[in-house]
Amino acid sequence: MEKIPDHGGNLYNAARKTGRSVEDWLDFSANINPLGLAGCISQVLVQSIPRIIHYPDPDAFELKRILSRRYGVEEACITAGNGAVELLYILCHVLKPRRVLIPAPSFGEYERAARAAGAEINYILLKDADGFLLTAASVIEKLPGTDMVFIGNPNNPTGTILTNRVLEEIIEAAGKTGTVVVLDESFIDFLPDDAPFTCRSLLSRYPNLVILHSLTKFYAIPGLRLGFSLTSPDLAQKLHAAKDPWNVNSLAQAAGIAALEDEEYGRRSRSLVQQANKSMYEGLQKIAGFKPFPPAVNYILVHTGNRRTAVEMQQSLLAYGILIRDCSNYPGLSPAYIRVAVKRPAQNQVLLDTLQNIAGEEK
Amino acid sequence: MEKIPDHGGNLYNAARKTGRSVEDWLDFSANINPLGLAGCISQVLVQSIPRIIHYPDPDAFELKRILSRRYGVEEACITAGNGAVELLYILCHVLKPRRVLIPAPSFGEYERAARAAGAEINYILLKDADGFLLTAASVIEKLPGTDMVFIGNPNNPTGTILTNRVLEEIIEAAGKTGTVVVLDESFIDFLPDDAPFTCRSLLSRYPNLVILHSLTKFYAIPGLRLGFSLTSPDLAQKLHAAKDPWNVNSLAQAAGIAALEDEEYGRRSRSLVQQANKSMYEGLQKIAGFKPFPPAVNYILVHTGNRRTAVEMQQSLLAYGILIRDCSNYPGLSPAYIRVAVKRPAQNQVLLDTLQNIAGEEK
Repeated sequence: MEKIPDHGGNLYNAARKTGRSVEDWLDFSANINPLGLAGCISQVLVQSIPRIIHYPDPDAFELKRILSRRYGVEEACITAGNGAVELLYILCHVLKPRRVLIPAPSFGEYERAARAAGAEINYILLKDADGFLLTAASVIEKLPGTDMVFIGNPNNPTGTILTNRVLEEIIEAAGKTGTVVVLDESFIDFLPDDAPFTCRSLLSRYPNLVILHSLTKFYAIPGLRLGFSLTSPDLAQKLHAAKDPWNVNSLAQAAGIAALEDEEYGRRSRSLVQQANKSMYEGLQKIAGFKPFPPAVNYILVHTGNRRTAVEMQQSLLAYGILIRDCSNYPGLSPAYIRVAVKRPAQNQVLLDTLQNIAGEEK
Repeated sequence: MEKIPDHGGNLYNAARKTGRSVEDWLDFSANINPLGLAGCISQVLVQSIPRIIHYPDPDAFELKRILSRRYGVEEACITAGNGAVELLYILCHVLKPRRVLIPAPSFGEYERAARAAGAEINYILLKDADGFLLTAASVIEKLPGTDMVFIGNPNNPTGTILTNRVLEEIIEAAGKTGTVVVLDESFIDFLPDDAPFTCRSLLSRYPNLVILHSLTKFYAIPGLRLGFSLTSPDLAQKLHAAKDPWNVNSLAQAAGIAALEDEEYGRRSRSLVQQANKSMYEGLQKIAGFKPFPPAVNYILVHTGNRRTAVEMQQSLLAYGILIRDCSNYPGLSPAYIRVAVKRPAQNQVLLDTLQNIAGEEK
């Protein structure tokens, strides 16, 4: 299994190949909050433009203070990143794991970052028949000899999620085998209530636990780049020493500070996504041959049936100006899986209608 | 020599410590183009805000095309960075040099990035008596057993510069000892004519040559983060594989594209800096005890004489709302060196007058 997935959301590439501008696509390939920018962000960015003539705050002081309060974690545990993915690479460069365990399918950057640090990859194959659910036993049996294990919670692209009780079993067992557990909670803000799922409260008990958290998906700012990691204070210091001191640009810091204070945006986003998820899931079930997997958050993995591959499906939708994520390049998936983001109800309806059309044409 | 310099430009820290806001300082501690933002940048940024809901172009396609044209280098050699400093860290993580040679004093991140990758540091001590000029011989004699050597050209904080004829001697000798030469050309755009100095045209002949180039200083966008490296196409691919694919945020890409096209801004900046440099240098010479070093670009290293240390000088200026760079924490410098950026004539006059005042008080 040597295939590492390309990513969704490469609108610029789609635009170059087709001549259609970046703004003209209906993009279901990137899992971004469909509510768009929080009301305050545009204004804060415009106000902050004059400050770009100065270096960013290398301590991300204000941002960390707000993250600490919002997520109930100590500031000494927080490292701010130019997106969570930057921190994933720095983590691998610092810890230099030799043997890494990764569920398949999962976010392709786990593998790419681990390989960049020279690691050998072992997969835990998730199965369609089990709804792609990861079990604690399947991880624990592979821990001996493993330096690092990645777990997306919720997992991307499967949309599956584990409770923190199950995860604690893994983290505890990993502590005994000297394995670092990297838990990616980048989509956890989309949950109506993350209390049964997040492992933030376990941080102080397990120094082998690392939590990654993107802020770009929930706050719809992937173009600005913003994320953070939660680790032991000791590891936070090592990450700090191994990175560019000015890694988080001033505008991302300003936007993050404003967005995290906007509780109304958070509530509205969760409510929108919850309802839209339900309709989208039901709509996808009605398309001949389709098998969607129940989503925990704002994206849905779909088996498209055996009459058409994901590549064909993606090609057909391109002609309608619609982008989806072809999942055939994920290790562990056959060529008939796609992933669609959940957007606003009217946009979702356009996707469902177009998929129905395509399915109808093929009969 | 274990001291690694803190940086200038930490306005946020100064603001937190004093209660004076970030905008209220006269900041001579960071070497940023005194002309401020190119006219087009604010407008481009405001127009680009809606695009931050999409991922940045991971190929930095348009930016690389313009860099290629502007600097006469092949696109395959270019890696775009979240500032040049990000690329410095990625380069060290990828090449993992064991023994690194660094002139002292020079930009502190060379040492920090090399140490983060586990390197052992050897210094080439530059001497006040020689005007801190680096000689090819002093580098070449230390090349055997050295995996990587850093050279700032112009060098920071000394303001010294070497011609590409001298540098080619070093690069050629380094090729024979298997040493990578990392040439930092981050301030080279400030020169009236960079042709006798830049080593860009040597890239295709020397695969052991790496050029780093910041765009944040010349275009006054340190808060946005933007830089690039020029390497062999082979090393560019390795750097690409070892970094977050979305490392350069959308607004930095948009600003860079606009700024690089603005040739008038470039001309005006070089002319302003050249004139301001001259007056500032002459003004500093007139202050009792001060010995400024002739600047190649927009900052001046100054020996403050033996009556006062750089720390005392920095403290005195804080009370006037003026920041300078205390250079006492640079390896290779005694406690009596400061660095001042060159700003607009009226601002420079405020600094000179204040320094005269302080010098007068001490008599």
